[in-house]
Amino acid sequence: MNAIDIINKKRLGGALSPDEIEYMVMGFTEGAIPDYQMSALLMAICLQGMTKEETVQLTGIMRDSGETVDLSEIKGVKVDKHSTGGVGDKTTLIVAPIAAACGVPIAKMSGRGLGFTGGTVDKMESIPGFVTSMERDEFIRSVNETGIAVIGQTGHIAPADKKMYALRDVTGTTESISLITSSIMSKKLAAGADAIVLDVKCGAGAFMKTYEDARELATWMVDIGKGSGKSMTAVISDMEQPLGRAVGNSVEVREAIDVLQGGGPEDIRALSLRLAAEMVLLGDCAGGDRAKAETMVLEALDSGAALEKFRQFVANQGGDPAITEDEKLLGEPAFAVDVRAENDGYITALDAMQIGLASQHTGAGREKKEDEIDMTAGILLEKKTGEEVRRGDLLCTVFGNDKAKVEAGAREAFKAYSIGPERPEKTELIKEIID
Amino acid sequence: MNAIDIINKKRLGGALSPDEIEYMVMGFTEGAIPDYQMSALLMAICLQGMTKEETVQLTGIMRDSGETVDLSEIKGVKVDKHSTGGVGDKTTLIVAPIAAACGVPIAKMSGRGLGFTGGTVDKMESIPGFVTSMERDEFIRSVNETGIAVIGQTGHIAPADKKMYALRDVTGTTESISLITSSIMSKKLAAGADAIVLDVKCGAGAFMKTYEDARELATWMVDIGKGSGKSMTAVISDMEQPLGRAVGNSVEVREAIDVLQGGGPEDIRALSLRLAAEMVLLGDCAGGDRAKAETMVLEALDSGAALEKFRQFVANQGGDPAITEDEKLLGEPAFAVDVRAENDGYITALDAMQIGLASQHTGAGREKKEDEIDMTAGILLEKKTGEEVRRGDLLCTVFGNDKAKVEAGAREAFKAYSIGPERPEKTELIKEIID
Repeated sequence: MNAIDIINKKRLGGALSPDEIEYMVMGFTEGAIPDYQMSALLMAICLQGMTKEETVQLTGIMRDSGETVDLSEIKGVKVDKHSTGGVGDKTTLIVAPIAAACGVPIAKMSGRGLGFTGGTVDKMESIPGFVTSMERDEFIRSVNETGIAVIGQTGHIAPADKKMYALRDVTGTTESISLITSSIMSKKLAAGADAIVLDVKCGAGAFMKTYEDARELATWMVDIGKGSGKSMTAVISDMEQPLGRAVGNSVEVREAIDVLQGGGPEDIRALSLRLAAEMVLLGDCAGGDRAKAETMVLEALDSGAALEKFRQFVANQGGDPAITEDEKLLGEPAFAVDVRAENDGYITALDAMQIGLASQHTGAGREKKEDEIDMTAGILLEKKTGEEVRRGDLLCTVFGNDKAKVEAGAREAFKAYSIGPERPEKTELIKEIID
Repeated sequence: MNAIDIINKKRLGGALSPDEIEYMVMGFTEGAIPDYQMSALLMAICLQGMTKEETVQLTGIMRDSGETVDLSEIKGVKVDKHSTGGVGDKTTLIVAPIAAACGVPIAKMSGRGLGFTGGTVDKMESIPGFVTSMERDEFIRSVNETGIAVIGQTGHIAPADKKMYALRDVTGTTESISLITSSIMSKKLAAGADAIVLDVKCGAGAFMKTYEDARELATWMVDIGKGSGKSMTAVISDMEQPLGRAVGNSVEVREAIDVLQGGGPEDIRALSLRLAAEMVLLGDCAGGDRAKAETMVLEALDSGAALEKFRQFVANQGGDPAITEDEKLLGEPAFAVDVRAENDGYITALDAMQIGLASQHTGAGREKKEDEIDMTAGILLEKKTGEEVRRGDLLCTVFGNDKAKVEAGAREAFKAYSIGPERPEKTELIKEIID
């Protein structure tokens, strides 16, 4: 086999064989194929595409390039959940305890964030004492006994993806549905669950800006997951404006607790219930009956069973479950700035991307891997799209421990709001379920 | 400016600005743009194409990346000739003296060969005493006094092309009409002539296998040359079978002398006259009248003026002009093997590529840059396509100084001949003139 022949084959629009894909991907990962040959192949893939069969092969090769997690010692159908990323997305903290309360074993690996806020792992670490690293045996035991454990991703998952992603990032080869799908799915497959519920975001604050693009990605991920032997469901949800009202780390944990206590913003509650129901369905806990799954998750939330599961989960990983009664335990920011409306009217848009940027300015997110996160920093959105405001009304509060950063964040947050004379049409939060 | 933005622009099918092309090409040549970014761009160019305007810009930037030759001290319109390469192509040795005899100043740089036989420079060096390197002043003086000088290409011509070509070669990005055109034309433009006659070969023994592909390349080269301010003509000629009957180095010089003496094979004579007439026309020596140019070159050949010009040219560069009277001065091979027909019939095909390979086996061509050429090695084709043969008839003679190599060459040469019961249709030698 020869790299140039393989590149030429893809350049001419041919489908690569499993052996050819493996030759290039593993050769590149191990250093035998130089980056200039890999980047030429990646560009050819961007422009000529890959079939779903090729993408299943690529995904499997990337999955097998590193450690794969064996969850076979955990009883039941293990269901994972993955979000393509948005602003204010704290669903894992809510969905995991609800699904676990319904009997779905949750053995989840989550990432740290680079960008607007921390990732799920960072958010959980804002809980005093909470530990996100665990030996394998303890992880398995935790899930079998508590029904839920969430840990940080190890560095040994899908090294081929890590190296390919770094190259794609600097060679203009990020925009390929096959490459995006295989990058996400290789890591998810390596994490060992039997079934995966995907939350594919679309809108201004998401990677996929349009419904059509999000639908295509969702369809590909479901197909590639099924092609790899997993049960799959994708929920396409709105990310024009941030999800919920809290954006940051400890402030998002607080909002998650609100939802688990029966309160919280309607959108985050609704999406969490939807995702949890899909997990219960895939986890084979509702006899394949979606209506029954919906009833089960609502019951788990309303009865307090999900909140109790959350407390067990926090306690099992060294955190203080008292945070559900005394939210001050999560820490308080030293500074806060109110952002106010300068006109009367309706909020016609609340740009999720801009709120994310404002959040990063406050210190809630990292710019570089080495950056420290200010766990108390973030934004609380008083007004969201469609709400009426009068000049001087509070739009949002921006806070954190660094005064200059909080002020910079407030200036950015102000720009996220568009105010106009007419109330905008309501957009659908949950757009489609693909299974 | 940013390499990733430029790559993305081309990936999406946009046209790059002159500044963007320069940023990438010069950045790459100077080491600021890494090879993995350049290879991604080259693949995007292969698949999305470049406009002729972009290609003119690219060609100019590559031309200006190194030394450009100033021929302004030479009187008259300097006309260069370029062949896209074939087997048995010794036209430069014939065309240059004919055109010079008609008054066209020939100040030519030629290459060494890597492949089937040596290049024009190698072939000339098979003439005892002939020197192909010259100081600039001597080169200019030679052309002004003798009317003709041919030297080897310097290493400082178009370094951007050299570096890009090496990368294209290993990244599956050779097949792009824009990249092929700019690679050839940047070097030709740097060589300083006012006008260029292109001999674009098509057929089994050429880079372009079909007439359509050759025509596209010819049209692009003519357009890019004109866009760069040069007078341009392209002749599309057949390369299904080798040109003439001699393939090698000194054996090709011998055949060139035969033609200059009024003999030689009909195809090489006809093509040489055609190319010389186009040079006379572009060189403004026939008042723009093609028929007059044709008469002039025929007259130069028939009168012996071209042969005399050849002798002056050889003498001026240190060679012995007596080779035109005593061809033994060119040296004799130590071994020769006859290749004979095993069937009765007609030669239905004589594969130029296979004859080239056989020639390389004899030692007439280099495999690697460092290889020594056996100047006496080569092949003399007794039979060519369309000719009748009987079992036992001589097809060709293969010769050289290394017995094992000559025998290997003979085995390969035998495979080049196809013999069948019916006489094949004659193919047109000169297919089109594009100007």
